[in-house]
Amino acid sequence: MTTTDQAGIAALPMPDLSRTFPGPFPTSPHAEDIQAHLGQWLDRFPLLSRPEARHILCDIVAHGVARTFPTAEADGLFLCADLFLWLTAFDDTYGEAAAAGSPARLARRIQGCVHLLGGGEVPGDAGAFDEALHDLLVRLRTRATAAQYLRITGCLRDALFGILWEAHQLADPGHVSMQDYRMMRPHTVLVRTLIAATEVVLRYELPEEARRSRAVQQLEAAVADLAGVLNDLGSYARESAKGVPDSLNLISLLTRDQHCDIPTAYAAASRLGEEHATTARRGIHALAAGDSAVLAQHARALESIACSYVWHIGHARYKAV
Amino acid sequence: MTTTDQAGIAALPMPDLSRTFPGPFPTSPHAEDIQAHLGQWLDRFPLLSRPEARHILCDIVAHGVARTFPTAEADGLFLCADLFLWLTAFDDTYGEAAAAGSPARLARRIQGCVHLLGGGEVPGDAGAFDEALHDLLVRLRTRATAAQYLRITGCLRDALFGILWEAHQLADPGHVSMQDYRMMRPHTVLVRTLIAATEVVLRYELPEEARRSRAVQQLEAAVADLAGVLNDLGSYARESAKGVPDSLNLISLLTRDQHCDIPTAYAAASRLGEEHATTARRGIHALAAGDSAVLAQHARALESIACSYVWHIGHARYKAV
Ligand SMILES: [Mg+2]
Ligand SMILES: [Mg+2]
Ligand SMILES: [Mg+2]
Ligand SMILES: [Mg+2]
Repeated sequence: MTTTDQAGIAALPMPDLSRTFPGPFPTSPHAEDIQAHLGQWLDRFPLLSRPEARHILCDIVAHGVARTFPTAEADGLFLCADLFLWLTAFDDTYGEAAAAGSPARLARRIQGCVHLLGGGEVPGDAGAFDEALHDLLVRLRTRATAAQYLRITGCLRDALFGILWEAHQLADPGHVSMQDYRMMRPHTVLVRTLIAATEVVLRYELPEEARRSRAVQQLEAAVADLAGVLNDLGSYARESAKGVPDSLNLISLLTRDQHCDIPTAYAAASRLGEEHATTARRGIHALAAGDSAVLAQHARALESIACSYVWHIGHARYKAV
Repeated sequence: MTTTDQAGIAALPMPDLSRTFPGPFPTSPHAEDIQAHLGQWLDRFPLLSRPEARHILCDIVAHGVARTFPTAEADGLFLCADLFLWLTAFDDTYGEAAAAGSPARLARRIQGCVHLLGGGEVPGDAGAFDEALHDLLVRLRTRATAAQYLRITGCLRDALFGILWEAHQLADPGHVSMQDYRMMRPHTVLVRTLIAATEVVLRYELPEEARRSRAVQQLEAAVADLAGVLNDLGSYARESAKGVPDSLNLISLLTRDQHCDIPTAYAAASRLGEEHATTARRGIHALAAGDSAVLAQHARALESIACSYVWHIGHARYKAV
């Protein structure tokens, strides 16, 4: 493990991924175009009012998506970046601490999104988040097959439910078991949505039988678990520095369940991250070495997704205190 | 309009559907087999403990599904009946009044279902509702195409979100606008799930372009709205007789928004139901008279769905006071 030294959290161990996902990670030549596009999209749909929040979010989303899909063409990158900007802005605006005070209000906010996801029309009094979601769904439907569209909109529902679930449990995390937390984490860290978006961005379609295979399921689960642990390690430092955690976090749950201090929990979480990274790397090798071209493509896509999560916790968003 | 005379609610006007959906409605020769199957399924997955609740729910689901799909073969009927039994039992057990006291607990309960709907494995400590849902999803996946499976699991997510949304708003319905209510109602009355299940039960597949056509969308919306109004008219009498409404209801919202008494609101809701029925009937005629065989089949399926909702509010479940 390596150590980090962020404000308020002294020298905590981060996972050592130098053999599994060593970096530097390839990035798309369209990175700057993505960022410019995001700025224009936010001019059309003003999801964020604070200029600083807007700048930092556009930056992490543009460069994150550029690392997730280094070989994709611009239109797919723009669509995926807008989707992630929307989800993150929604969570930052309506989720976490803002929602914990009134989950009923958050449920009403999400209801408008559920209506659109179910194929409903934009209501007369729609706000920027509804208009932007409608724009995303129209573009997604144009680019995706029926099954791909339904798979992504299923993940979006799960991500929105995850935000609501988190808002509820934040006030009283004592009821959340470690198993529950690990079940929900892939949704709240948005990695399931990213995995579902991959085929649409890179324009391939996994046969259903391959998708249901143990090899693919286990690899996707390892990448999803890795993403959650990494985000938790990054978020904990950021949120602890602010004083109160804004979200449920693996570190706090580990200190509770193992009656240990924060550095010990950090070390345990880092080891868990290393284990997920090893499983993911092994799964990528196995799929990429097989004789199915589409499975090899899926393996490379999952590798890039893992890399983008390794990359993202080094971003300034996770240093913003 | 006709009038009804149920305990506690004197002579309230019900919609006159004698020209749009006159009945008697055709029913499947498998009705008794469905009811026997439901009993066996509940022996495997004990979702309901009270024998009386079990009997009345099996009866309404079996005979409702038999009227929804009078021409379907047994396996499709069994699957759809199990699905509706599961949803209704889940709502009766965890939703409505039980949930209003602790939406956070309901969110944790739903989280296990979201995990399974997203393709997760059954956890070690799974209860009867999780085991039963897993059984449903396995059978659904076997029978449905990938897109059909994803469409139904999307509707199931919306139905579960609807239960959670309702639990939140029940304590303080003043924040629920009529527009919000009408957006959510197709999900809470489960009619969207039933529409999505139709193609799987009857084994046809609507081409995407037809599904997105204005004719199909408007007909589905009219049937969905009719289902909601009918259920509200039936439920209001039942719940008022119990003293406290267990769910949000069009009648209460109308008395609030139009500052009117209950008979006036009932009359307005009944007229609304008649209007939806007229729109639905017109849409069914138009699709059935066209030259597309699959659209004509879809029109007949939607007709049967409308009939099953007309039929269901006369069932003993809506007289149980
Ligand atoms: Mg969050
Ligand atoms: Mg976080
Ligand atoms: Mg209900
Ligand atoms: Mg009702």
